[in-house]
Amino acid sequence: MQHRWKLIIEYCGTPYSGWQRQEEGVRSVQGVVEDAIHAFCQQRLTIHVAGRTDAGVHARGQVAHFDLDYGDRALTGYDLTKALNAHLKTEAVSVISAEAVDAEFHARFGAVNKLYVYRIVNRNAKPALEDGKVLHIRRDLDIGAMQLAANRLLGNHDFTTFRASECQAKSPVKTLDRLDIEAVAYDDEGGREIRIYAEGRSFLHHQVRNMVGTLALVGEGKWTPDDVAAALAACDRTKGGPTAPPDGLYLMRVDYKAEL
Amino acid sequence: MQHRWKLIIEYCGTPYSGWQRQEEGVRSVQGVVEDAIHAFCQQRLTIHVAGRTDAGVHARGQVAHFDLDYGDRALTGYDLTKALNAHLKTEAVSVISAEAVDAEFHARFGAVNKLYVYRIVNRNAKPALEDGKVLHIRRDLDIGAMQLAANRLLGNHDFTTFRASECQAKSPVKTLDRLDIEAVAYDDEGGREIRIYAEGRSFLHHQVRNMVGTLALVGEGKWTPDDVAAALAACDRTKGGPTAPPDGLYLMRVDYKAEL
Repeated sequence: MQHRWKLIIEYCGTPYSGWQRQEEGVRSVQGVVEDAIHAFCQQRLTIHVAGRTDAGVHARGQVAHFDLDYGDRALTGYDLTKALNAHLKTEAVSVISAEAVDAEFHARFGAVNKLYVYRIVNRNAKPALEDGKVLHIRRDLDIGAMQLAANRLLGNHDFTTFRASECQAKSPVKTLDRLDIEAVAYDDEGGREIRIYAEGRSFLHHQVRNMVGTLALVGEGKWTPDDVAAALAACDRTKGGPTAPPDGLYLMRVDYKAEL
Repeated sequence: MQHRWKLIIEYCGTPYSGWQRQEEGVRSVQGVVEDAIHAFCQQRLTIHVAGRTDAGVHARGQVAHFDLDYGDRALTGYDLTKALNAHLKTEAVSVISAEAVDAEFHARFGAVNKLYVYRIVNRNAKPALEDGKVLHIRRDLDIGAMQLAANRLLGNHDFTTFRASECQAKSPVKTLDRLDIEAVAYDDEGGREIRIYAEGRSFLHHQVRNMVGTLALVGEGKWTPDDVAAALAACDRTKGGPTAPPDGLYLMRVDYKAEL
């Protein structure tokens, strides 16, 4: 009998070409997880993901689902997690949990909220312990100004200014529910980590990284919050700031209706 | 004119053979920093460190000093930090700060307090994002029991039970001022990070890792706090628990008299 399984997956994006399976020989997170499923049950199954991440983007709580016919044998979420992780030992990918869900559950279409965090280490010295895991910005960022600018992006807008040209979304109109800037101590010498929390039902391709690249301009004093509002209103990608690198971006969590 | 400089150094221990400079061709943190100093001023200088760390052990706030004759030219801590970091770009080592200090300052002999943290990820799935940066323990750890056991190690004792056979300290008697166990959420699925904070003026070789390996036995229910007290009293390394791997250990901070 067939069951739908929901997986929560953690991965380091650095060694992969991104979530999506590509041609043979290209290492993707999807490919690696599907290979683990195949090694476990000898079936070539396709998994459906909540949010495809680009090359180098990390996840602490990515969600995917797939349908498995495991015959009459009993299979618990604990068993499945353990079995998949046994085949993921050499990868920078872990299944944190597996749960049997209703056949109506859909990782992508059922998602009602996603939380991303973008991490910036803001100090003179490069972060020696987190290469590829954070963006390093030397110039002291004005997080008060960044928060004022972030507030101008909240709500329902046409986000074309922050949309990658390859974006496949039908509409550029999205609702941004949260864009918070937080600073925490990173070392004992005054170095800070700036965390940008972005939350909403869905995002355009590169939207978070494009918003972060723009907010960084504000933090560096090159742009004002008004400049950001004007860029948003222009609905023109060429009026937005640069795309921040993938290194600092983490998909933290995906929420579904029944869970809220 | 000669000046003494104090450096605060951050590094990832994974790619190095440890702090101490070894024969040609072996990559050590000391060697990498001394090479950066040489590249900066064309002088082969020796740096003196607060606490030599073993292969794979990390530092967020290692301290070292060296003496530099830079002629009549002005040199600020900011300049020196920037110059050394420019020569450390390809290394997992960063100089967080450089400060001109009195000629009496000594990174090792002047240290009055050191703080180490040992990080354990305690959940079923391996930590995909922090390979080499944490110890992974699957079995649910009883941190209440671990803290009771840790309390039995506090104070002035002969720590022979937790001392590596290669240890060069004159005496096995040390004062342990703090050994705290803390648990924080690591993911949204119940996974925890256990942090063990160890603080004191100085430690024997492998002392923290041997204490952590022993406390882990208590957390797993294999040992009681009384067993730990008995092991300590035995003054016999063979009565202690195993040496925890270097991956989870971080030298966080070194304090000096004038700073307290």
